[in-house]
Amino acid sequence: MTELKNDRFLRALLRQSVDRTPIWMMRQAGRYLPEYRATREKAGSFLDLCKNAELACEVTLQPLRRYPMDAAILFSDILTVPDALGLGLYFEEGEGPRFRKTVRSEADLAGLTAIKADDDLAYVMRAVSTIRRELNGAVPLIGFSGSPWTLATYMVEGGSSKDFAQIKTMAYDKPALMHDLLTLLADAVADYLTAQVHAGAQALQIFDTWGGSLSAAGYQEFSLQYMQRVISRLPAEADGRQVPVIVFTKGGGQWLETIADCGAQAVGLDWTTDINKARARVGDRVALQGNMDPSMLFASPARIRSEVDTILAGYGRGSGHVFNLGHGITPGVNPDHVTAFVDAVQELSPQYHTGD
Amino acid sequence: MTELKNDRFLRALLRQSVDRTPIWMMRQAGRYLPEYRATREKAGSFLDLCKNAELACEVTLQPLRRYPMDAAILFSDILTVPDALGLGLYFEEGEGPRFRKTVRSEADLAGLTAIKADDDLAYVMRAVSTIRRELNGAVPLIGFSGSPWTLATYMVEGGSSKDFAQIKTMAYDKPALMHDLLTLLADAVADYLTAQVHAGAQALQIFDTWGGSLSAAGYQEFSLQYMQRVISRLPAEADGRQVPVIVFTKGGGQWLETIADCGAQAVGLDWTTDINKARARVGDRVALQGNMDPSMLFASPARIRSEVDTILAGYGRGSGHVFNLGHGITPGVNPDHVTAFVDAVQELSPQYHTGD
Repeated sequence: MTELKNDRFLRALLRQSVDRTPIWMMRQAGRYLPEYRATREKAGSFLDLCKNAELACEVTLQPLRRYPMDAAILFSDILTVPDALGLGLYFEEGEGPRFRKTVRSEADLAGLTAIKADDDLAYVMRAVSTIRRELNGAVPLIGFSGSPWTLATYMVEGGSSKDFAQIKTMAYDKPALMHDLLTLLADAVADYLTAQVHAGAQALQIFDTWGGSLSAAGYQEFSLQYMQRVISRLPAEADGRQVPVIVFTKGGGQWLETIADCGAQAVGLDWTTDINKARARVGDRVALQGNMDPSMLFASPARIRSEVDTILAGYGRGSGHVFNLGHGITPGVNPDHVTAFVDAVQELSPQYHTGD
Repeated sequence: MTELKNDRFLRALLRQSVDRTPIWMMRQAGRYLPEYRATREKAGSFLDLCKNAELACEVTLQPLRRYPMDAAILFSDILTVPDALGLGLYFEEGEGPRFRKTVRSEADLAGLTAIKADDDLAYVMRAVSTIRRELNGAVPLIGFSGSPWTLATYMVEGGSSKDFAQIKTMAYDKPALMHDLLTLLADAVADYLTAQVHAGAQALQIFDTWGGSLSAAGYQEFSLQYMQRVISRLPAEADGRQVPVIVFTKGGGQWLETIADCGAQAVGLDWTTDINKARARVGDRVALQGNMDPSMLFASPARIRSEVDTILAGYGRGSGHVFNLGHGITPGVNPDHVTAFVDAVQELSPQYHTGD
């Protein structure tokens, strides 16, 4: 493998000294970029784009051509695993993802296809290895998956949900079935992420988009426990280098102490959490990623810069911070505002790393 | 005024001893009840129902005929104030509330109608006094309003929003305009709630439904500060009795310590907060209201009962807890499950109040 030219992101995740705070953006490849929309049009549907290794590579690299990001992230969907399990993922324009089948009974669970990520999600692995080759060591490549709980919400509800009535009824009334489904998903996710590492991913992020819909006790029982199971089954390193894992639970700010103990090297923060307090709460256990309000990118470049300054000062001196938004970038953001955002992190962060 | 026969709710809000934990449910009058749907049909639109004092009284009392709730809450909408300010509230079937006009500039702000709640929201005051009379002292009546920030989100966005792009752009780029709007709203809300107290409300709740969309610093600056302003302008008592105020910020669990200092007597918790930890964090400063996951009402009566038990034990011994859901009851809940819920609180809570 080509040597990594910029390892700032990996070093910060391991709380090793860096010259400045690394930055990338969740959903950095996507609808706010005209070149993405052009490629998407060429590909056909969103799923066609995910399944085409060359085009998935192209949209992964597009933001890196515009902005000096410190990491690339695989372009894919969080629902590839349930799709491979046989549920039939599809998208209707203007709506969220949907599944043709749902999992609501023991029979539904038994009817899921047994999968091996290398074979059944080979298109993802082709995209990973293509991107890794094309990156040519410029920056590390992040692989990712949805968390078991988050995947389960879509599988049980059949799509997005406001109140998660179906899955919560299952969790509350049929906990054994719920745990069987989550165990199956945790093992599938571990296999999927392991295959991504073997294909070339150098760091991993688990997106727990809907863990925050649970009660404190429910989060521990139905979401965090299964992310721990995933992490415990991942390869610790690849090419002789540690593969750090980032766990991001949107709405998980109240539970940082327990999340910090789940085995991940880093915890993603959404924008509702004060990063200064978060660092005090997690101490030396994990790095932190985040956490500017994505809507701040609608504000003026000067206002964006002052917010970056506030967040950098909030985290304070030393390594262990990866700058990011507190959630995916919002479609409709002016790409020039992203320039202001990335420039601000580049220019304002070195002072927090002098003498390390 | 008739003497209050059941003051358990008011006493718990003031952390005075009670025989058992009082209970009511946010949105207890509403779509999960067939008798509500029948009255709603008779009224015409949702707004027609809010504006008809007799029918608003009828739906307010409906849940009390089924369940031994310890409080009634005025049936109304949170957007009556912006409607009176001239924005033209309307509802489209299956969608959220909408406004015909929005407030996005100094000129829009200057164009708002000056209002006096007694005159311009007289229909609300008629509903309050009608309900208070019909309650005949059975239980206290809760008046309510949306928080200034929550009202502003609808006024600036023109309706519901996923990412609050418009109002956040205003907050970040035009803070002076944002603060002028919030000041105007805080004073209107204070006048509105004061008028409700004069009309007969015996406790008040401020619904800060969208405060949780802000960053920690943004919450303090744009939401909490203005709820403090509202509370500081409210009458401390009516008929010689204190009028307690409950502040409920959905998604505000990370900020409990500061919310507890806003001047309210009680803080509402959504279901993501561990009530045991919450009590330790707020200490003796405020009572707590909440916080069962509304989706728990989809589970079996036995499961509901065990959850009530867990929450009661979490709060622990002594007064200062008002049982409630962590958000409004979900339409589609089986009314018999509400019976199980209310019965469980009634039957299981006295043990936490013996010897007080």
